Amino acid sequence: MMYQFQCDYNEGAHPRILERLVETNFEQTVGYGEDHYCRKAADLIRTACGNQSADVHFLVGGTQTNATVISSILRPYQGVISAGTGHINVHETGAIEHGGHKVLTAGSCNGLLSAEAVQELMELHLAEDGPEHTVQPGMVYISFSSETGTVYSLAQLEAISAVCRRYSLPLFIDGARMGYGLASEGCDVTLKDIARLADVFYIGGTKQGALFGEAVVIVNDALKKDFRYCIKQNGGMLAKGRLLGIQFIVLFEDGLYHELSEHAVRQALRIRDAFESKGFGFLVESPSNQQFPILPDGIADALSSEFMFSVWRKVDESHTAVRFCTSWATRPEAVDALIEKVRSL
Amino acid sequence: MMYQFQCDYNEGAHPRILERLVETNFEQTVGYGEDHYCRKAADLIRTACGNQSADVHFLVGGTQTNATVISSILRPYQGVISAGTGHINVHETGAIEHGGHKVLTAGSCNGLLSAEAVQELMELHLAEDGPEHTVQPGMVYISFSSETGTVYSLAQLEAISAVCRRYSLPLFIDGARMGYGLASEGCDVTLKDIARLADVFYIGGTKQGALFGEAVVIVNDALKKDFRYCIKQNGGMLAKGRLLGIQFIVLFEDGLYHELSEHAVRQALRIRDAFESKGFGFLVESPSNQQFPILPDGIADALSSEFMFSVWRKVDESHTAVRFCTSWATRPEAVDALIEKVRSL
Amino acid sequence: MMYQFQCDYNEGAHPRILERLVETNFEQTVGYGEDHYCRKAADLIRTACGNQSADVHFLVGGTQTNATVISSILRPYQGVISAGTGHINVHETGAIEHGGHKVLTAGSCNGLLSAEAVQELMELHLAEDGPEHTVQPGMVYISFSSETGTVYSLAQLEAISAVCRRYSLPLFIDGARMGYGLASEGCDVTLKDIARLADVFYIGGTKQGALFGEAVVIVNDALKKDFRYCIKQNGGMLAKGRLLGIQFIVLFEDGLYHELSEHAVRQALRIRDAFESKGFGFLVESPSNQQFPILPDGIADALSSEFMFSVWRKVDESHTAVRFCTSWATRPEAVDALIEKVRSL
Amino acid sequence: MMYQFQCDYNEGAHPRILERLVETNFEQTVGYGEDHYCRKAADLIRTACGNQSADVHFLVGGTQTNATVISSILRPYQGVISAGTGHINVHETGAIEHGGHKVLTAGSCNGLLSAEAVQELMELHLAEDGPEHTVQPGMVYISFSSETGTVYSLAQLEAISAVCRRYSLPLFIDGARMGYGLASEGCDVTLKDIARLADVFYIGGTKQGALFGEAVVIVNDALKKDFRYCIKQNGGMLAKGRLLGIQFIVLFEDGLYHELSEHAVRQALRIRDAFESKGFGFLVESPSNQQFPILPDGIADALSSEFMFSVWRKVDESHTAVRFCTSWATRPEAVDALIEKVRSL
Repeated sequence: MMYQFQCDYNEGAHPRILERLVETNFEQTVGYGEDHYCRKAADLIRTACGNQSADVHFLVGGTQTNATVISSILRPYQGVISAGTGHINVHETGAIEHGGHKVLTAGSCNGLLSAEAVQELMELHLAEDGPEHTVQPGMVYISFSSETGTVYSLAQLEAISAVCRRYSLPLFIDGARMGYGLASEGCDVTLKDIARLADVFYIGGTKQGALFGEAVVIVNDALKKDFRYCIKQNGGMLAKGRLLGIQFIVLFEDGLYHELSEHAVRQALRIRDAFESKGFGFLVESPSNQQFPILPDGIADALSSEFMFSVWRKVDESHTAVRFCTSWATRPEAVDALIEKVRSL
Repeated sequence: MMYQFQCDYNEGAHPRILERLVETNFEQTVGYGEDHYCRKAADLIRTACGNQSADVHFLVGGTQTNATVISSILRPYQGVISAGTGHINVHETGAIEHGGHKVLTAGSCNGLLSAEAVQELMELHLAEDGPEHTVQPGMVYISFSSETGTVYSLAQLEAISAVCRRYSLPLFIDGARMGYGLASEGCDVTLKDIARLADVFYIGGTKQGALFGEAVVIVNDALKKDFRYCIKQNGGMLAKGRLLGIQFIVLFEDGLYHELSEHAVRQALRIRDAFESKGFGFLVESPSNQQFPILPDGIADALSSEFMFSVWRKVDESHTAVRFCTSWATRPEAVDALIEKVRSL
Repeated sequence: MMYQFQCDYNEGAHPRILERLVETNFEQTVGYGEDHYCRKAADLIRTACGNQSADVHFLVGGTQTNATVISSILRPYQGVISAGTGHINVHETGAIEHGGHKVLTAGSCNGLLSAEAVQELMELHLAEDGPEHTVQPGMVYISFSSETGTVYSLAQLEAISAVCRRYSLPLFIDGARMGYGLASEGCDVTLKDIARLADVFYIGGTKQGALFGEAVVIVNDALKKDFRYCIKQNGGMLAKGRLLGIQFIVLFEDGLYHELSEHAVRQALRIRDAFESKGFGFLVESPSNQQFPILPDGIADALSSEFMFSVWRKVDESHTAVRFCTSWATRPEAVDALIEKVRSL
Repeated sequence: MMYQFQCDYNEGAHPRILERLVETNFEQTVGYGEDHYCRKAADLIRTACGNQSADVHFLVGGTQTNATVISSILRPYQGVISAGTGHINVHETGAIEHGGHKVLTAGSCNGLLSAEAVQELMELHLAEDGPEHTVQPGMVYISFSSETGTVYSLAQLEAISAVCRRYSLPLFIDGARMGYGLASEGCDVTLKDIARLADVFYIGGTKQGALFGEAVVIVNDALKKDFRYCIKQNGGMLAKGRLLGIQFIVLFEDGLYHELSEHAVRQALRIRDAFESKGFGFLVESPSNQQFPILPDGIADALSSEFMFSVWRKVDESHTAVRFCTSWATRPEAVDALIEKVRSL
């Protein structure tokens, strides 16, 4: 029997989601997200975000959502500023470029873009003699939590938001792991802060307890117009849209989303502590559901006979950074087994 | 209580699909369609198609599938030949053009593209003095069944396939309603014929009993390479890919797909007969699950108090063509009620 | 010796243009259209258009200009309304689609789009149940003169402009043959009317006496921002931009542009009259520099031994519509020879 | 009187080019590059390249040429490998991304991409678990001479070409300054080497004595098909194509191209030597027509009252790297004046 920690989408969905899908299965509703479930889910999300005028749309997956949002904002000659590690820059097979836009990488540290880096890039562009020969920065993309499990502090987020507003750059937050970020150790950011500081963001469902689904929240009025055209054009308008509405209702009607997130983070920190106790270092200090211990290759091999995890990258001749990922579905007993194994190393 | 006939995606999924999702929910599998469920579903589909070497991929929705397949085939200066009524030409918000390609409309009748029209368009292009000033036709797109419920005969399909091969144009068949087409009244085409005559096609799940999902079958070896890159770039690679595999296993492991299709067509023909008996004409003679009676406006209004259906288009000052759509989920009692109402008109 | 009438770009440029290029050849200027020649040419064009606040940019060729202007205006899910015969729809190898946009063809007659057709298309779109499933009309494209030599009357232009403003659709006029249109027989439109009724248009140089070059005039303030980025991205920013400025100075400093246009039209009408006198019909009644007589195939063959012209299209079994095209460079003696030949038929 | 050294496109064209344009001005030819001048120019270029079967096409400018060639080669999910300093990566306003493709930057030094960096990037991609989640490298782009004046040695070029062939990556060489590279100090590469080692490249005219124009040479048979469609779609097909043919005839019929290149390099090296003699350092050691001395800011200011040059970038608080650029048109007396001034500093 193998315990799987290689990603946060190994299982299906939280059982209450499946139950609700079964209960509602034969109800007839209109398609394309215009049904009453989607409306109710949108209301719940607006309330959770503390913004009653936000537009909420439901899409199926992350790459699709990123491509749709970015394409809806930029003019053709504009690019999106991102950390080099940003998901849009490395793991979406060029979906953003397929839509016609350059990803402009700016300085980042451990997956977190810095406000200074954005400012510097903007100043450089504006100072150019002939800026029209280069791509114009048109928006900023960050991930919360980031691709390496790190999480912006409120001060960092406010600084990024401020520089974005100074230069009229819409700030887009990829929240594929929004819940895990908000539930992370020491996090001083709330969903309401996100809604206050971003222009548009999404709340991930796929990695957070749903079968699939991402809820896009558009806060900035200027970005709301015609977004449904963009969804449809990018192939993201689910015929049976209610499947998304129903799932987000379950996640948001009584705090399940946050509860599942906390569970995942708790298990991840147990794993972190186990490796730390044995003196292993980490590629990056992560307070959320992804942990990146650096292991001697022999030990990584030994662990891999009982546990599945991702090989992240070689750090030197004989050591490898690996990723252990927990999720809403991680069983504490699986973590127990892992911890015991680590202790025995 | 309203009976809904406005489309074939009003309900969730066949109960056996939900059951299977529930049963498998906590199993841990790898993501992105590389799990054993997807492999098994692909095998079942290859067998159903009578082609053991076809590549099978699972995507979420129709627009996404069309954009992905077409983008994977065409060179930048090529276009896709389609009937003017083709879904890609009218109802996908320009997804094909967003991917860089022109939809070249050719002569069609009642939603069916003719082999002659394809041939004529090719001859015109090749005869041009300076063909490079115009878009080069690069493939052919047809729908089976078509957007207006009509279905190609085997002879028509063979003729189109022959002209495509003569001009080296890959033939792509949109099978969002493949089952309803194959189960249509008088149909002499089988899924094996489809697999023999097309270069690539898909078998629709969304409108045919699944929660969502379309199974792309690539028959032509030249079109197989790197298709997974295309899926990912177009935002169609579902993280929990097994959800698609599981659904298509249920649909194809013991004939459920065909059974549900036959059910839908049977109910549609009952509706057709009821309108016909009362002397109503039809926009188009459809042998499949979509029926387009032409109704005096007063009668359309009267029906709409109890039944939901789509207004298709005005045909003259006082008459409107409407669409009644059945599906795998249509209850015979709902059709009974509709028939009774029609008789009473 | 063959006389060539097959197009309006058979020769180089008006001699005064070459003279000016020679005179200024060793002057050193900054690149990319920011030199004093471009500034002066822009001033001359603003004056000719009666609009001192218009932005004027110089590009090299027509397809490039169309792609650049359209890409600068539309959002990704929008399309451009055009006559089916529009250059962007048939003779630019899908450059507009390559930029991501659908060309939406609307009703037209003899190459002229009608205001009614635009209105109808808009009403249809707005009346749709779920307009976001279809491409949103985002602007209107017309050609002046049209691809078949016809020319809008002032009343027609005003009607199109009015419907465009009613629906907030920017009106873009392709003026590759602007001069020939304005100089056409019976034309009641002036360049100032064009500048008043369009949001953006261009004044063609390539077919009108320059070596190459098209002057884009942006009248609508909302369309001015960042246009130089669009030019550069679309490969239209000439390094030695002054070559364009110098040419348009020559064409506009003392009326040469209009003078050359009148010459071309005068010669074309002589050709028209000759064919007419002999009883030949025409594909379309053209008052400008392109004439489309319908000839029995034998006569077309006979003419082709001494004169080059374009075969336009077969009109029936034994007749073909051909195109005779004059230009700024057409020698009256060549026309004399053609007329004599026609008379002798 | 200011002497201009800020770029290599400050003047018009070599006088013999203008003479030839004047002589041929009233000759009537067919358009779009299918005239006898283009054919003759193509022959001359094939001979200069030592490859009688290459396809030769003429385009107007560099950005357009890069976008056209790259778009003609890559499949949608592929990217082009380039040095970070590559023109396509920084100075084309995202034209490559507008065409749908990511620029994949790989390790480079002083503007020169290394074979090792290409190999490493390929190995990384192929070793990935799930390569389809990332952009597939599809070709390699290098500049000869590079954007910072440096030039590949024959050994370096052969190494890059070898790694490209090993991984089936077409090698595209941007030759906007091909002549200046070939004529550079110590260069051991010939045009025939370029034609032997690249799959496609272009020979720049714009910066090398022509009014404008770039000659694309396609060596690899697999890349030849339908290239004219790509030119047209990308707005690069000049109506009066002969203007390009005539210019390249003048440049290649009796060695003018090489002669002008040598002149420019000679003058650049005189400038280099003058700065070097005074003890100034350089941003990069350049053997070609662009020189990048590092100057104390006060001295840069002093020079700028008599000479125009480009500010490249600040290297520290008080020093700036600047660019002096010579060309086919640089007058030795201008260089004399500059040298004298430098000596007097």
